[in-house]
This record gives sequence, C-alpha cells and structure tokens, in this order.
Amino acid sequence: MKKYTTFILLGIIVILAALLAGVLFFMKNHPVEQRAVVQPLVTVEPMEPDSSVWGTNYPLEYSSWLLTESNNIDTEYGGSSGFSHLERDPRQVFLFMGYPFSRDYNDDRGHGNALTDVNATKRVTETTHATCYSCKSSSNPALWDELGLEGYDSMLFSEIAPRVTETIGCANCHEAGTMRLIVTNPSLENALEAQGLDWETFTRQEMRTVVCGNCHVEYYFSGENKILTCPWENGTRIDQIIAYYDEIGFCDWTYPGAETAMLKAQHPEFEFFTAGSTHYNAGVACADCHMPYTRDGAMKYSNHNIHSPLLDPQAACGQCHTDVDYVTGRVNEIQDQVFTAKQALEDALVDAITALQLAVADPDSDPALLDEARTLHRQAQFMWDFVSAENSMGFHNPEYALSIIAEATDLARQAQMKAAQAADDPSLLQVGIYYTLDPVPTPVP
Amino acid sequence: MKKYTTFILLGIIVILAALLAGVLFFMKNHPVEQRAVVQPLVTVEPMEPDSSVWGTNYPLEYSSWLLTESNNIDTEYGGSSGFSHLERDPRQVFLFMGYPFSRDYNDDRGHGNALTDVNATKRVTETTHATCYSCKSSSNPALWDELGLEGYDSMLFSEIAPRVTETIGCANCHEAGTMRLIVTNPSLENALEAQGLDWETFTRQEMRTVVCGNCHVEYYFSGENKILTCPWENGTRIDQIIAYYDEIGFCDWTYPGAETAMLKAQHPEFEFFTAGSTHYNAGVACADCHMPYTRDGAMKYSNHNIHSPLLDPQAACGQCHTDVDYVTGRVNEIQDQVFTAKQALEDALVDAITALQLAVADPDSDPALLDEARTLHRQAQFMWDFVSAENSMGFHNPEYALSIIAEATDLARQAQMKAAQAADDPSLLQVGIYYTLDPVPTPVP
Repeated sequence: MKKYTTFILLGIIVILAALLAGVLFFMKNHPVEQRAVVQPLVTVEPMEPDSSVWGTNYPLEYSSWLLTESNNIDTEYGGSSGFSHLERDPRQVFLFMGYPFSRDYNDDRGHGNALTDVNATKRVTETTHATCYSCKSSSNPALWDELGLEGYDSMLFSEIAPRVTETIGCANCHEAGTMRLIVTNPSLENALEAQGLDWETFTRQEMRTVVCGNCHVEYYFSGENKILTCPWENGTRIDQIIAYYDEIGFCDWTYPGAETAMLKAQHPEFEFFTAGSTHYNAGVACADCHMPYTRDGAMKYSNHNIHSPLLDPQAACGQCHTDVDYVTGRVNEIQDQVFTAKQALEDALVDAITALQLAVADPDSDPALLDEARTLHRQAQFMWDFVSAENSMGFHNPEYALSIIAEATDLARQAQMKAAQAADDPSLLQVGIYYTLDPVPTPVP
Repeated sequence: MKKYTTFILLGIIVILAALLAGVLFFMKNHPVEQRAVVQPLVTVEPMEPDSSVWGTNYPLEYSSWLLTESNNIDTEYGGSSGFSHLERDPRQVFLFMGYPFSRDYNDDRGHGNALTDVNATKRVTETTHATCYSCKSSSNPALWDELGLEGYDSMLFSEIAPRVTETIGCANCHEAGTMRLIVTNPSLENALEAQGLDWETFTRQEMRTVVCGNCHVEYYFSGENKILTCPWENGTRIDQIIAYYDEIGFCDWTYPGAETAMLKAQHPEFEFFTAGSTHYNAGVACADCHMPYTRDGAMKYSNHNIHSPLLDPQAACGQCHTDVDYVTGRVNEIQDQVFTAKQALEDALVDAITALQLAVADPDSDPALLDEARTLHRQAQFMWDFVSAENSMGFHNPEYALSIIAEATDLARQAQMKAAQAADDPSLLQVGIYYTLDPVPTPVP
C-alpha cells in the first residue's frame, strides 16, 4: 500500500504542475488588462455615422456625449448657450461688415447641436458649398471616403444635406473596432503631410490633441470648388499663416467702402494652444481638460460631454492642480485682462476702418498709401479675429494672445494713420471717429 | 544573597526610570528645533551698519551675502554685470532725452556693489539730494533714526556721503537681536500706512516679500526737500499710480522739444509682482525664488547671494517645480515675447516723440491738441518704463506686462496722431519718422 501511496502522490504532483504551467501560459498570453476591456456587444461598421450604434458597446461615453445636446451652460466669456456675439458686442457687426458673420454670429453650442445649428444659420445661402458641413457631422467620414474631399466640397450645401444626417459623433475621432483616435478630416491629414508629419506615428497623448484638430483649426475654402484647406504650409504660428495667405493672395471678402481684402479667422484652437502654451508644453492634451477622466462606480472613463473646464473645475483642473479655487481665479483674471485688451483693439480697428472708408471716399487720396492702409487693416483685423474667434478668451495661451493683441493694436492705429496720410486729412485721426460721424451710422449687416 | 539581588535590581530600575523621566522632561522644554538655533557669539547693536558684525553670528548667510559683490553674472535679459541699457538699446538714449538716465543707465549690479555704483554714477550732480542713497546702504536705518526722513532727505548727497559707509546689508531688512524681518525704510512704512496697512501684523511669509519693498518699489522725490515717497495713496496698480501723479501734478522732467511733463519709473518690482501675478497669488514670496533655501552640510539657510533664479534654477524653481528645464524654457519664451512687444512699443514712442517735437516746432500748431498729445506721451512712456525698469523682462507678472504694453502702444500711436492733428500735418504720421529725418539726429543725452 505504501508503495502505491508514493506513486499516487507523485502523480498528483505531476498533474498539478502541468495544470499550473498551463494556467500560467494562458495568463501570459491573456494579460489582466486585456481581459478588462469591454467585450463588444455589437459590431460597429467602419465609419458608422450613427453614434447610438457605437453607444451600445460604450454606454458611459455615449451617455456623456448625449449631454452635449442639452447641457448648454455659459461661463463668463464663453459656454454653450449659443449667445449672439453681435448682440453682446455690437462692434463686431461693424467689423464683419459685408460678410455673413455680421448677419449671424452665435457662439457654438455643444457637439450635439452642431448639425441643427449649421442647418439653421443665416450664413448659409443658395450658393454655399457642402464644405460648410465639414465640421458638423459624423456622416462625413463615410462621405469623404465615398466622394473624396474634392467630390464632397464641390457639391452644394443643399445638395449634400439629405445625406448629412448625424451631428458630430463617434466616427469623427474614432476608428470602429480598435476605437483608436484617428484623423478623419482629409484636410487635416493633408495639412499635416504638408509639414512632413504623419499622424499615424503620433502617441496616444498627442492624438488626444490632434483629433480636436479635425475641426478646431484655422482653414479656408480653396478655389472654385471650395476645398477645405488649412493654411499651414509655412507652419501654424499666426505670422506664418498670414504669410501663407499673402503668398497665395487669398481673401475671404472685401470690406465695403474700405476695399480691404479681408481674412476671417475660424476657430484656431489647435494652432493657438500648440504655439508654446504653458499647458501644451507641459504635455497636457485638449482632452485632459475638456474630457477629464470621470468615475462611474468602478468604471473610469473619459467624459464625452465636452465643455468648458470652468463648468467642472474639480474634475478638469483638479486632475493636476490641488488648489482649484486658486487656478480658476487665475483663469478669470487672465480672461479679464485679455478681454480688456481685445476691446481696446476693437476700438482701434473701428477707428482704422472708418478712417479708411472716409479716405477711400475722397477722390484725391493717394492710391498707394490707401493700399498700405489696407494691408495694415487686413493684418490687424485677422490678428484680432485669431484671438477673438479662438474659444478661450486667451486662456489657451495667454502670453500669445496678449502679444498678438499688442501688435495688432499697433497695426490698427498705423492703418488709421496711413489712411489719414492717404487723404492728407488729419481729421481722420480722431480716436472714436466712428462715433463722431453725424449721424452715427447704424451698421447694416 | 538572592534577597539582596532583588533589592539591587529594583533600585537600578527606579534610578533608570527617574533618569528617563528627567531626560524626557528636559527634552519637552528644549525641543530639538530650539537647540539647533545659533547661539549669538557677539551682541549686535540695533541698526548696526556693519554687516561683518552680524556675520559673526550668521556666517553662512554672511558669506553668501559677500558673493553679491563679486558674483555678477548676466542672464539673457538681465543679470548683474552692470551692462549699459543705453548701449544695448540706443532708443533709450532718445526716450530719456533731457534726463540723467540718457547719460548713464547701467543695469543694477549685486547688493555688494550698490554703494560703489551710486557713488560712481554720472546721474549724481552737485545739487543731488541725499535721498539718492536711500536704497544703497545699511548705514541708512541708523541715519533715518537719528535724522528722521525729512532730515536725511533734505541734506545734499555730497553732505551725507561721509556717513554712508556701508553697502546694502543686514540692517536693511533685519532687526538686531530677534533677526525678524522688518520695514526699515520710513517711506515704505508711510506708504503702507496710507493704505491702512501695518506691517507689524504681516506674516513672516508676507514679510519675505515686503522687505524687498524697502527698495524695489516705485517712488518719487516729493517737494523741495526731495522726500522719498511711494505714490500708493490710491493703490499700487499702474493706473492708480498714474492717477496719483496726475492728481498731485508731479513730473520728473520736461521732455526737450516736446515739452511733455514726464514721469520716470524706478524699479517697481514690488508693485508689479503683487498685482495678481500667478506666483504671488500662489503664496510665493520674493525670497522663495531669489534667496532659495540652501544646504551646507547639516545646515539649511536662506541664500543671501540674491540674484536671478535663472542662474541656479534647480535651487530656485526646483523647490516647487519638478521639471526645471521645462519651467526655465517657459521663462525664456515669456521674456522673448515681452521683449519683442516692448521693442515695438519703443518704436511707437520714438515716433510719437518725434512727431510731437515737430508739431511743437510749428508755430501754427493747436496748443490744446498739443497738450492732449503730451498727456498721451506721458502716460504711454511711463507705462513702458514701468515694464522696462522692472527687473524681470515681464516674468514677475507676464499677463500684466503684456496688457500694459498693449495699452501703452495704443496710447503712443494716439500721441503721434494727436501731434499730427495739432500741426494739421499728416507727414508727421510716418512710421519710423525719426529715421526719416534728414540728417537723422544723433540723440544728445
């Protein structure tokens, strides 16, 4: 019996050792992290426009994304209520004279309203191209894939409208299946390529900024087919962008009366933030502040209710900063400073434009000097707009904002001076000249 | 024998317990920190001017303080070599025309050279008052105590010189005996009182900023007796300081040819840093960065070789920031931005002054408009000087620096415009007009 016992025990040991080896081998090939990943409940087709399909697999991200439609709250200088910039600051009606933005310029609401709002804006007319949908819909990746960028952009807005059915959603930033972050906007891919950059080589943290650049960039509509293009061939700093526009002789519209070839800045958050801002240089991505990690029970997820960090600073700033009251106080102070400087710049621009209009109306004005004044006006107003249209009241890069405003104020006053020289008329130098006109004209959009 | 052993052992236990209790009681009344304090070797008399006497008791602080004489290294925009601002930036010769700063304007060297340098400067003349020694010597506290502020300031520089024998030292900030930080400059005490503040109630951390204000403040010489006075009655922000100077009708000099009643900014580091800067709001004191804690063996002391934190960022920035390369990179970037904006402002000021001089030279110019131009010139140049004379190239408060520059640039261009209106002469509007004069005048200090 004793002899058998030894064999039985040895046998058990061999079996146990084999089982252990097998389990260890299995675990080696199935790390714990992998097993925690969500198992897809449904298969999402590539470039699936409907976010609710993706939402079956990612219910937390999806339900937070849904809030971008309803949860539209304002901050001191921004937010998502969709307030009218023109009503808040009537100078902007004058500054955008002759351009659709002087008719209708509402602050962006949350992603969930992007499609509704672009379909409602008075800026769209019968001749508007499909290009205006580029940043408004998760239907786009599939459409770009089918039609190509040229095919998409050369259609009319009204023509493509029936196929643009979804607001901004999952497909704008994610690859179905892998869920990795991707560049979906072909214009962004082109613009990165023009700088020798390949987004496929970027880290995940870099992509957490770059995917926002799918939309939050400066762009223009190139050529007759209105091809969406980022003006980044020289680089993404404001002087490089202005140089690019000058080189290709681009203008968005001609300012009435002044005859200046104007540039409209779009929403250059990407260029502004990445131009050496303190947060970007410290390795912070857009998503760190605008989509902070959030807990729901045992699950941690990236909040897809994208909004101002000021609306939930504990979640946003509190990831890195211990004293949230202190840092939000800093944000407020910086935004107040930028707002004040930006308003003074607007006053200088209104003066410059008024002087230029009066000088142009004078048949004896020197044409060469008028052209110099127009160049100054074009530059100064684009610089103002670059800061003004960027949605952070300077906070994304405070020193950059204030440096740009300081230079633009100089150029705006120089434009007024040049107009007075052109007309040989010192009366055009009045500060606040617009308001001295009798009667003070009501800006007609 | 066994009985005795027990008694002997019990006796030893009682003795040991009593000894232990005694030692613990002693330690309770003599905490470790107290015992580490330096025991004075010599008695320092109140307001002792000679720092070497204090140095016997505080050899580490003293030997680091000694380095302020010899260890004069430059940074990109500042430092302690005593370089000439006028040689580095000849526009400043023009900007200070008619004022001694256009003859001699060297950057401050370390505290150990303050007395040597004030005795050597060409800005001092036969009529200069003793007031100019106010920030240059540890002989001052005893002299103020003896003569009073009025008695001191009403003497001539040459008259008091034999009694001013020590450079800036211990007595400028410390109370002998207690070594606590104190306000020694009666002008600072007066200025704080005027705002309802009593420095005796300040915390030690507050005093680690306020004692720097014994000298590093904006001030002017009031009345015939040239009483040292801080213009803080309205507050310490730049607009409040300008309002104060306007209310009392003060000017430092009259600008030749332009006839502008000018203001010279001194070294307003205190006002600049405390105006809501990010570091000040976070509770950082001047001494935290400029006198960082340093180890020498087992001793930890506050480094009295006061200098730019950029010369030893690991000790200075590294007390709070983990990535010193990152933060010094930020400092460099911010200083570059402020430098660029400041230079553009100088160009605008040179234009404004030139236009104003030409307009004043024209007998037909409108006197009221000339006065308006002068007011703008006065404000813009003081605002420039406030940033320029402040020794951090804007870093002590970057957004404040750039906000001030943006506004001052606007005002400088408005001054030029107003001069052209006064003379009814658009040719005065040339940008770079100074350099278009034929021949280009060489600024005569």
